Amino acid sequence: MPSHLEDAATVDLGFARIDLTRKHRCGFPEVIYAEGKAVDGLIQIVSTLHTAGQGCLATRVNEAQSAALLSTFPHAVQERIGRTFWLPSSNQPSPPTGNIIVVTAGTADLPVAHEALATAQAMGINTELIADVGVAGLHRLLAQLDRLRQADVLIVVAGMEGALPSVVAGLVSVPVIAVPTSVGYGASYQGIAALLGMLNSCASGVAVVNIDNGFGAACIASKINHL
Amino acid sequence: MPSHLEDAATVDLGFARIDLTRKHRCGFPEVIYAEGKAVDGLIQIVSTLHTAGQGCLATRVNEAQSAALLSTFPHAVQERIGRTFWLPSSNQPSPPTGNIIVVTAGTADLPVAHEALATAQAMGINTELIADVGVAGLHRLLAQLDRLRQADVLIVVAGMEGALPSVVAGLVSVPVIAVPTSVGYGASYQGIAALLGMLNSCASGVAVVNIDNGFGAACIASKINHL
Amino acid sequence: MPSHLEDAATVDLGFARIDLTRKHRCGFPEVIYAEGKAVDGLIQIVSTLHTAGQGCLATRVNEAQSAALLSTFPHAVQERIGRTFWLPSSNQPSPPTGNIIVVTAGTADLPVAHEALATAQAMGINTELIADVGVAGLHRLLAQLDRLRQADVLIVVAGMEGALPSVVAGLVSVPVIAVPTSVGYGASYQGIAALLGMLNSCASGVAVVNIDNGFGAACIASKINHL
Amino acid sequence: MPSHLEDAATVDLGFARIDLTRKHRCGFPEVIYAEGKAVDGLIQIVSTLHTAGQGCLATRVNEAQSAALLSTFPHAVQERIGRTFWLPSSNQPSPPTGNIIVVTAGTADLPVAHEALATAQAMGINTELIADVGVAGLHRLLAQLDRLRQADVLIVVAGMEGALPSVVAGLVSVPVIAVPTSVGYGASYQGIAALLGMLNSCASGVAVVNIDNGFGAACIASKINHL
Amino acid sequence: MPSHLEDAATVDLGFARIDLTRKHRCGFPEVIYAEGKAVDGLIQIVSTLHTAGQGCLATRVNEAQSAALLSTFPHAVQERIGRTFWLPSSNQPSPPTGNIIVVTAGTADLPVAHEALATAQAMGINTELIADVGVAGLHRLLAQLDRLRQADVLIVVAGMEGALPSVVAGLVSVPVIAVPTSVGYGASYQGIAALLGMLNSCASGVAVVNIDNGFGAACIASKINHL
Amino acid sequence: MPSHLEDAATVDLGFARIDLTRKHRCGFPEVIYAEGKAVDGLIQIVSTLHTAGQGCLATRVNEAQSAALLSTFPHAVQERIGRTFWLPSSNQPSPPTGNIIVVTAGTADLPVAHEALATAQAMGINTELIADVGVAGLHRLLAQLDRLRQADVLIVVAGMEGALPSVVAGLVSVPVIAVPTSVGYGASYQGIAALLGMLNSCASGVAVVNIDNGFGAACIASKINHL
Amino acid sequence: MPSHLEDAATVDLGFARIDLTRKHRCGFPEVIYAEGKAVDGLIQIVSTLHTAGQGCLATRVNEAQSAALLSTFPHAVQERIGRTFWLPSSNQPSPPTGNIIVVTAGTADLPVAHEALATAQAMGINTELIADVGVAGLHRLLAQLDRLRQADVLIVVAGMEGALPSVVAGLVSVPVIAVPTSVGYGASYQGIAALLGMLNSCASGVAVVNIDNGFGAACIASKINHL
Amino acid sequence: MPSHLEDAATVDLGFARIDLTRKHRCGFPEVIYAEGKAVDGLIQIVSTLHTAGQGCLATRVNEAQSAALLSTFPHAVQERIGRTFWLPSSNQPSPPTGNIIVVTAGTADLPVAHEALATAQAMGINTELIADVGVAGLHRLLAQLDRLRQADVLIVVAGMEGALPSVVAGLVSVPVIAVPTSVGYGASYQGIAALLGMLNSCASGVAVVNIDNGFGAACIASKINHL
Repeated sequence: MPSHLEDAATVDLGFARIDLTRKHRCGFPEVIYAEGKAVDGLIQIVSTLHTAGQGCLATRVNEAQSAALLSTFPHAVQERIGRTFWLPSSNQPSPPTGNIIVVTAGTADLPVAHEALATAQAMGINTELIADVGVAGLHRLLAQLDRLRQADVLIVVAGMEGALPSVVAGLVSVPVIAVPTSVGYGASYQGIAALLGMLNSCASGVAVVNIDNGFGAACIASKINHL
Repeated sequence: MPSHLEDAATVDLGFARIDLTRKHRCGFPEVIYAEGKAVDGLIQIVSTLHTAGQGCLATRVNEAQSAALLSTFPHAVQERIGRTFWLPSSNQPSPPTGNIIVVTAGTADLPVAHEALATAQAMGINTELIADVGVAGLHRLLAQLDRLRQADVLIVVAGMEGALPSVVAGLVSVPVIAVPTSVGYGASYQGIAALLGMLNSCASGVAVVNIDNGFGAACIASKINHL
Repeated sequence: MPSHLEDAATVDLGFARIDLTRKHRCGFPEVIYAEGKAVDGLIQIVSTLHTAGQGCLATRVNEAQSAALLSTFPHAVQERIGRTFWLPSSNQPSPPTGNIIVVTAGTADLPVAHEALATAQAMGINTELIADVGVAGLHRLLAQLDRLRQADVLIVVAGMEGALPSVVAGLVSVPVIAVPTSVGYGASYQGIAALLGMLNSCASGVAVVNIDNGFGAACIASKINHL
Repeated sequence: MPSHLEDAATVDLGFARIDLTRKHRCGFPEVIYAEGKAVDGLIQIVSTLHTAGQGCLATRVNEAQSAALLSTFPHAVQERIGRTFWLPSSNQPSPPTGNIIVVTAGTADLPVAHEALATAQAMGINTELIADVGVAGLHRLLAQLDRLRQADVLIVVAGMEGALPSVVAGLVSVPVIAVPTSVGYGASYQGIAALLGMLNSCASGVAVVNIDNGFGAACIASKINHL
Repeated sequence: MPSHLEDAATVDLGFARIDLTRKHRCGFPEVIYAEGKAVDGLIQIVSTLHTAGQGCLATRVNEAQSAALLSTFPHAVQERIGRTFWLPSSNQPSPPTGNIIVVTAGTADLPVAHEALATAQAMGINTELIADVGVAGLHRLLAQLDRLRQADVLIVVAGMEGALPSVVAGLVSVPVIAVPTSVGYGASYQGIAALLGMLNSCASGVAVVNIDNGFGAACIASKINHL
Repeated sequence: MPSHLEDAATVDLGFARIDLTRKHRCGFPEVIYAEGKAVDGLIQIVSTLHTAGQGCLATRVNEAQSAALLSTFPHAVQERIGRTFWLPSSNQPSPPTGNIIVVTAGTADLPVAHEALATAQAMGINTELIADVGVAGLHRLLAQLDRLRQADVLIVVAGMEGALPSVVAGLVSVPVIAVPTSVGYGASYQGIAALLGMLNSCASGVAVVNIDNGFGAACIASKINHL
Repeated sequence: MPSHLEDAATVDLGFARIDLTRKHRCGFPEVIYAEGKAVDGLIQIVSTLHTAGQGCLATRVNEAQSAALLSTFPHAVQERIGRTFWLPSSNQPSPPTGNIIVVTAGTADLPVAHEALATAQAMGINTELIADVGVAGLHRLLAQLDRLRQADVLIVVAGMEGALPSVVAGLVSVPVIAVPTSVGYGASYQGIAALLGMLNSCASGVAVVNIDNGFGAACIASKINHL
Repeated sequence: MPSHLEDAATVDLGFARIDLTRKHRCGFPEVIYAEGKAVDGLIQIVSTLHTAGQGCLATRVNEAQSAALLSTFPHAVQERIGRTFWLPSSNQPSPPTGNIIVVTAGTADLPVAHEALATAQAMGINTELIADVGVAGLHRLLAQLDRLRQADVLIVVAGMEGALPSVVAGLVSVPVIAVPTSVGYGASYQGIAALLGMLNSCASGVAVVNIDNGFGAACIASKINHL
């Protein structure tokens, strides 16, 4: 049995069992998915991680959770559009490295893009945003081609038909992480159309994460960047 | 009651009821969907239409049907890749008009494209084919832009993620009829991915027909062209 | 590279990248999908287009957006049932041309029909509405047959089983753009039943747009009409 | 406990348990769904019912089963298109009563229609067939309106978009049993489009059976007719 | 053209086209689906039908609509659980005939059952209700067997797995109209489980209407009863 | 006919038909699914069961129902997180037996776990909870392995990809009842991802109940425990 | 780390990694899913398990695999209808214990039932089969009630609407493992209708395994039986 | 316009338009998806790429295509299990770099794994295979943990419930590309269960490609490796 598992420390809060070796095993501490969590429990989990000297990222933080967390942890960083909360560890952070560019097809994809940006920043990566370059006006994308080619990883966020990752991946040699969004109506089925489109990309070098999962895209992009 | 309905002539073959006023009402005679039809019945229907002085188009004609039809109607035109059969009426045809361009994303989309081409030709339209200009190699499409802009209607045929109609419609001012194909595997679900993608096109001016329905795309394109 | 792409002008608002050559490339300026957009951003986008001398159409405009837009742009035209906003360019408009008829199966389909009507009018087309002629009372439709046959394009809007486009397309020679609506309950699945019905129309000459997409139907109809 | 259940007789063949009181309880003996049944077992079941003095209907009978059954029971009636087998009881049959009309949208719907016709005939009902009157050529249907209105029950069989039952039910006052068929391709999804269409009929007085279930339609139609 | 269609009278209210010959053609006047209709329009439609001497049934009437309608038409009959409104014609009604029994699997199916009961009563049929006899306690159903067998038609309403129509149809010889309801959670998918179950009933003599469509079940049951 | 069915007692409340022999037949009295039930009816049903000397369990009890029930039956036990209500019969209860452990993948699965715990306790079983041991931090699960192996039955509750039951079942020899939850977003489709995952478990010895059905899992686990 | 994992023995065949401690951990050796496996590989895996002194069960064995296996292992037991292969370990088997009854709704469900029977027998359990007692002829089931109540566990196998497990579970106090089968056509969707029905059973005490998974049902039933 | 697009060379074969700058833009030449392509066309495309001095990879090559290609290009490398064909360019290849490990849950996932291995090798990457370490026997995986942690990228291939990528990603800090396979039956729906499971992974750092898309996984893994 590898030693990482044997000495694994957890803190049992009764309703939650905090994994304190996640950072050691996987490169980043356990992240809190705040959706539907009670404010009290949320604060307990954040405190536990913080006390253990780990940075603490929470995603899908709503207004009430956000207010409560900020009043308890006034030094935390909140991203309102992306609904993230980030309380860095008290250790001196390393300067950011690498270069992840987040690209969106439309304006309505911005909340997902900002979740990705905040996540990657918490993970110590340099980020850029290129918004609203969807395929209906192709010249907007082509004008950004030189920037796109200088990224280490591209996160491409799109709803509706989700065609942007295919077009981008046909123009660059860097890996593309595609994020379908629930933007659209009718037969977009809350992101199914975009998800299926991205899974069937005719351009190679594309991998896909869950609908609206800006966080997940940034996680794998950061792991790639830390190689 | 409009007179077209009152004097409507049909021929009742028992198993089929041939609509002889379809051409008068809708601009083109009844078309035969050959899938699963017995060879004998097929020949009876073709004969009925031909005797009534109408052109007769059949689609989805398999090898056996094709051989039998051709031996009975040696003057008919068969399109092997698109699996169509066309027996013109004995009247002197008008010279073709207009200009429909059929565009495909890949090589595997060609059978559907050829069904569209043969249908439009039977309907008296000039046609062109631009094959294999999918978005994974965008320059292939951009190199054809001047030709695309000179069409009256574009029929854009694509499988997998079906992104091509969105990209094309963002570059031209002519109407785009999008045809999803069942090309792909896994999460393409025999054309669902492409169909949903096309229905959710972020570019405006796109309408969609059934999966693999090259015939239907040519029908509406021809009606547009005859305006 | 065609010159249209090279000299393409965009205005980068940070959260949105306005495509000022859309009208040149595609025949009509960029249209705003207002769903979920902040009022401030909306006003910025409308101003940008208006300042550039372009007409500005917005769809899916809610009450709050509508009030804010109208107080900023008092000369704009609002369509309450169809939830559209239209700010014409300051150029003298050409007189409307052509003839698009929008047909609905039922009363509940009217919001989608009005989105189509307002869009087509903004695009400079003459329009008519024939409401509530669904197939449960066929004589209502047959009584309108002469009008239907004089249109250049028909937009047929229906929910539930979506049978109306098939019936109409079997009676006329003009192209039919079918719009499924989310009207219905239970196994209508917010418009899937109508959408699938229309994609499988046994009458030829029908193409389909997304569920509730009156805007999209009017776009392609207008492109057809401008041929 | 009602006496019908207490004295219920069954014959246990090991692999099958024949229900000899079905006719008493439900008005018609147990019917054999032949799909995938071994020829030997099939013959045993038919013999058991016949010996018990009951008529025996089998559906979905394939070529091999058909040949074997006919050689064992030479007096049986086979319907090739509808794939049914009917061995009447040796009792003198009552003369048929009532009037069920089976209507089809197209030629490809005929196998399902013939399954319905053979079933209703076995159940002692007079039947008629009106084939190929789909909505793409509405005059074909309207020409049959007087006949349709004289039926006791209508069975309306259609694939593709399945619009015919809605149109028929809007024209008559008799009950309509709708049968979706798997005729079509692409987004017809083996009959889903027609099934959903029929369940969402805007005309009232329509009830639906399973896809391709001509047998089931005839069962309920016959029960209605025996009232 | 049959004369019924030629002299068909409609009243065009602009937003609605009232079909005044529906009763003549189909046996009952046009029925109003109130969902989402404005109160003003609703009152106009009811008035139009009433003025024409026809009974007027509305379904899916919400609280606000209900209050407004009742204050305008104080003689109307409202069914709160089933959400129906019924304004009889001023003609002397015939005494009710026949016997439709509505059976429910559970208590939560009652709103759908009451829609069916009110509809059948408006159509002039005698009705009975047998509630909460689902298959989890089979003796509750078996105790009602004699009553069930004396009905002319059974309407069987069930959610969750929707097994009740199969069990009932195996015990009786009268036709069974099955109504799936959206009662359930998780993998019931708002009635899909029950709908699919009923379409695949192993007992014959079952036909199905849309999910929660008590109205539709009563329509066809009434047509059967009027035979 | 077995005697249990013949002498079966029910109480007919009009809107509900209480099954008083459920405990005798199935081992536990009828349980009330409170979702959508009126408070008055709920109290009537509870009273009927209580008067008959039976314990009464209700699930999915909302705040208002909960308050009303507790004021009427002050001795009842309420579980707020699991939303259950339990009024024991006045008979002296037997001491609890057996050992069911409920395991959750995450914190958000706790409401479903508590429904299972309260149900099993009402059925007279000893229970334990092991929360938040999902597969992203495997050591949390492995640290509990000895406890898991001493259970009689394991109820494993998980949302998202629902991998936990497979991993657990590969480590123990006791039966595993898997409960998918609606925890997740995007392509989790309210629990479909977890449900399909559990149905396709590569480890044997897993059976599955409906999404979020903690009650159902405890029912079968208790039946297993009472063997 | 628990010792069971540390000393876990595996045999690496390159293409397969045989788990020799499965029996120790989970109570029964690793079972081979033969679908699509090459005959050579199959024989290697069986030999590996047999040499290690373990019994070896294979499921979904086709004709060719079956012949090859039997010629190599002439003492194995093959079940043709259920398509299983069973090579007992050379140790003296314990006499079978317990009592699992497998119940089927129809004749076509027998292959799945036989897979369950052979699996349970290999696991050392006494088994019985009650075939063809579906709900269309309820008396067939009620006549078996006393037997059903004496089982330790019931495995209930049904296709089409899958109603049988609900009806059975409402009559007995033993746990019911429900197996949906792919028997049916049209809207049965290869077992989805039955699967959804069983997941939504209104009777409590039912858990479900994958479609056609007789093996999986027997696994959990055997684990229950070994408690 | 970036110069890469302006000077882009294509070869137009009529039925296919070979993209000769794919390698320059995206890092690897155009790859041929052989499914359904005629042998003649396939050879023409391979020749075109080879003549242009590019390596040529084809996937999904069937037996007939394979034989024809090998007789024309005897120096090519064929991978039978993974169905790939690889004709290196005549240039001296660089020595392979990096380290991609392909991990499978079961034996049946091997064809997809071999497609990934062959693709990555063609792209110049060192590869390893760890087969059959699915979660039903967790110790098999844990025994490989040290190897897994030394990879640059992991490609994790699994069918059925697809749990393996979640478990692996919770144990390592390298990026995980998850490949769902169509291995399974019943409710696995040809890979949907695994696909949804992987998209909803509770462990972060996972991105997903299409079902059975070993090629696509290797493409993005190689792009990551070339960073």
